[in-house]
Amino acid sequence: MAHLLSTSCSINFSSGCRPYTKPLIQDSLVLPTSLTFQTSKTPFGRLLLHGGRSQSTCTVHATTLSPSREAPKEPSYGVNESSGGAPKSQRVMVIGGDGYCGWATALHLSKKGYEVAIVDSLVRRLFDHQLGLDSLTPISSIHDRIRCWKSLTGKSIELYIGDVCDFEFLSEAFKSFEPDSVVHFGEQRSAPYSMIDRSRAVFTQQNNVMGTLNVLFAIKEFREECHLVKLGTMGEYGTPNIDIEEGYITITHNGRTDTLPYPKQASSFYHLSKVHDSNNIAFTCKAWGIRATDLNQGVVYGVRTDETEMHEKLSNRFDYDGVFGTALNRFCVQAAVGHPLTVYGKGGQTRGYLDIRDTVQCVEIAIANPAKAGEFRVFNQFTEQFSVNELAALVTKAGEKLGLDVQTTSVPNPRVEAEEHYYNAKHTKLIELGLKPHLLSDSLLDSLLNFTIKYKDRVDTKQIMPSVSWRKMGAKPRTVTA
Amino acid sequence: MAHLLSTSCSINFSSGCRPYTKPLIQDSLVLPTSLTFQTSKTPFGRLLLHGGRSQSTCTVHATTLSPSREAPKEPSYGVNESSGGAPKSQRVMVIGGDGYCGWATALHLSKKGYEVAIVDSLVRRLFDHQLGLDSLTPISSIHDRIRCWKSLTGKSIELYIGDVCDFEFLSEAFKSFEPDSVVHFGEQRSAPYSMIDRSRAVFTQQNNVMGTLNVLFAIKEFREECHLVKLGTMGEYGTPNIDIEEGYITITHNGRTDTLPYPKQASSFYHLSKVHDSNNIAFTCKAWGIRATDLNQGVVYGVRTDETEMHEKLSNRFDYDGVFGTALNRFCVQAAVGHPLTVYGKGGQTRGYLDIRDTVQCVEIAIANPAKAGEFRVFNQFTEQFSVNELAALVTKAGEKLGLDVQTTSVPNPRVEAEEHYYNAKHTKLIELGLKPHLLSDSLLDSLLNFTIKYKDRVDTKQIMPSVSWRKMGAKPRTVTA
Repeated sequence: MAHLLSTSCSINFSSGCRPYTKPLIQDSLVLPTSLTFQTSKTPFGRLLLHGGRSQSTCTVHATTLSPSREAPKEPSYGVNESSGGAPKSQRVMVIGGDGYCGWATALHLSKKGYEVAIVDSLVRRLFDHQLGLDSLTPISSIHDRIRCWKSLTGKSIELYIGDVCDFEFLSEAFKSFEPDSVVHFGEQRSAPYSMIDRSRAVFTQQNNVMGTLNVLFAIKEFREECHLVKLGTMGEYGTPNIDIEEGYITITHNGRTDTLPYPKQASSFYHLSKVHDSNNIAFTCKAWGIRATDLNQGVVYGVRTDETEMHEKLSNRFDYDGVFGTALNRFCVQAAVGHPLTVYGKGGQTRGYLDIRDTVQCVEIAIANPAKAGEFRVFNQFTEQFSVNELAALVTKAGEKLGLDVQTTSVPNPRVEAEEHYYNAKHTKLIELGLKPHLLSDSLLDSLLNFTIKYKDRVDTKQIMPSVSWRKMGAKPRTVTA
Repeated sequence: MAHLLSTSCSINFSSGCRPYTKPLIQDSLVLPTSLTFQTSKTPFGRLLLHGGRSQSTCTVHATTLSPSREAPKEPSYGVNESSGGAPKSQRVMVIGGDGYCGWATALHLSKKGYEVAIVDSLVRRLFDHQLGLDSLTPISSIHDRIRCWKSLTGKSIELYIGDVCDFEFLSEAFKSFEPDSVVHFGEQRSAPYSMIDRSRAVFTQQNNVMGTLNVLFAIKEFREECHLVKLGTMGEYGTPNIDIEEGYITITHNGRTDTLPYPKQASSFYHLSKVHDSNNIAFTCKAWGIRATDLNQGVVYGVRTDETEMHEKLSNRFDYDGVFGTALNRFCVQAAVGHPLTVYGKGGQTRGYLDIRDTVQCVEIAIANPAKAGEFRVFNQFTEQFSVNELAALVTKAGEKLGLDVQTTSVPNPRVEAEEHYYNAKHTKLIELGLKPHLLSDSLLDSLLNFTIKYKDRVDTKQIMPSVSWRKMGAKPRTVTA
């Protein structure tokens, strides 16, 4: 799976994308497109001038090329170009820009005036097909998404469809786009997925670790000054019985003192892949002078951002299933369909959480304040801590306000983790750089519950329960029944 | 490279292997062999009974089958079967058993009464071909080695030729051999090799990490009680400014205390691969109850063990080149051929060292004292610390005693590492379990120097200098000139 065919494409379209007005109705306009595919063997090199950019002739972009329908230069839907302090010349490559966090981030950065390219293999959509899953929200193709964004805002997002594990593809994307920053979301990001069977465990580590190695080599080879903003996870730390610091800890031992990488205790092959990444990146910062920021992100909740709300074609995905769904989002779906909230084990598992609107804000802050050459900077990216029981209580209360009968049930914990533990993780560095958190308020929970109620007819209740066991995972390939 | 054709073979031979008598002369006997190769698609499954062993008919072994020439049951060359406390029923799979440490270990364990199988893809020999390198010592094929051992001692060593990254091959080897312990040396083990170019960096991490994942899954699937003895490296720790403990450190921080994995600071893609392995193994011990011992080994020197000395066909490899050679062995070769000892940078780099006779002893101790179910045990496996300058001084002094004119030169450090630093690494756990160290004495150095002098005509002086730069490594595939 790590070596899907890499393609690049040029898209012409002759129909604009109307700004979204409620209620949500699937846009019935068919956008005629012409697609040109080429394999990664001769990707786009022939269109490049040495060291220069040739955007007007480059075929790799998925942009709106029809002059007659071109959107106005000024955004048409409340986009404030002057907000944020980012230099307008900044070119940001968003790897994994078709995914949950990546798509929201790509739009946010584009709105803020960055020139954005999405690099994505679209394999996340393949996982849904293979496992029989689907997003709660209907999501458009990446091509429709980008066309719609251009139509609404006049802003182009370049598109490179391919796998970062394919270094030839990645090299050409780097040489073509010449990023100043790379935001790397492009990894298999589900702990349960990595624990389905041996082949998914190996895929997760191979895909994530080798993809990141390739990104590091591409930066060294083609864009040495480029700032890598890499998505890690708070799950790398595990649940130690001492305070969790941001990446490093100063230890005094036998009368001597040093500041060392914070010890990691990851608890799935996915979380481990992020630990491996962090170690690899730290080494290249030291050896090659790479500038990198590792964002150890908490559990993300919510779905709407200012940009994805602009049109139904810009809708973000929303996962509620036992493989890709995360605690709070899944609880809201359970409440909406009258399924008991599934607390794993005792429910004392405490983690850091954040609103997806803060994910996009944090990434922008990291880009606008880059790491120094050779610096490996670690930020803990979350805004509040909750235990699973606390989340269940919050959703129950919010559901009752909306007239829902919300029950909670404890199911045997499919994971191997402490269910009652100390947890105190620092998260001050992004605040110091200007993060204004969207905390989990009653009104946000109401809005999230209403959102899930709106789409509750799309819920496949068979996908809600946990289906992957940490202890029972086997070596044999696991298949699913229809 | 990670998926070479896996083969299994049966070998008949009709010529015994005479015990070695000095002087060293290449044994001129030609051993007629018949080889049966089969691909890993249908490796040996058809020869297996469910859960049983069928050694008499199994084609996977490279053993001496000729009854007329079969060696006596009692060893013919000073092998003391009663030494050591290992139960005779112990079946040990040595992955990477054709390599420098693996071969010596396989013989030692066989001599001690363990039933031994070697699993090896032989890719280490391919690296030599590809890079134009060779062992200082002539080494026999793995088939000749095993036949000779059988002829001398009457002991069979089973042979599974294939790649542990190929899970189908590894599964069949597990089901066929049914190991009680697995000693895993089967990794790309050179830091400079991993820093040649992108493809070798990616190969090293993919080969090492995915191979070890497969070993863990094979244990879980087929031999849950099996004890994994995994070769790590002291290089995982880097050079912190505090004492290095054995795997774990107790930290008191903000008034709370926990014992956590010792922070790692590896400084090559190879060393990083071992850190990734350690993290993966620790997780499976916790999640699945795997029993594992991680041997964080120092720099190994020497070449002779009691067993490899028995016959020239049992000779171990001896690497002195800039890619696979390690400090002390390389210095001895340099002294032997009149090349200045190449100290990298200031020469204050301090590391743990051990005699290869202690490597084999440590592995046996680990096997004889297995980790408990679910335990991830870490031993620092070295006996003495030296700085590079101290080693150079020792070799200079020993060379002068033999009438050699030994010069030392400082060459620009190709690595990224501290050249003057604090270093104090604990190494008591193996001593507590009974390790009797062979310390680096004048007599050992004399013997090692005499050994390199004996083979000095085989030295390719072009291979002595460092050829791989940590900072300058590129993404492009590097080729070598003839």
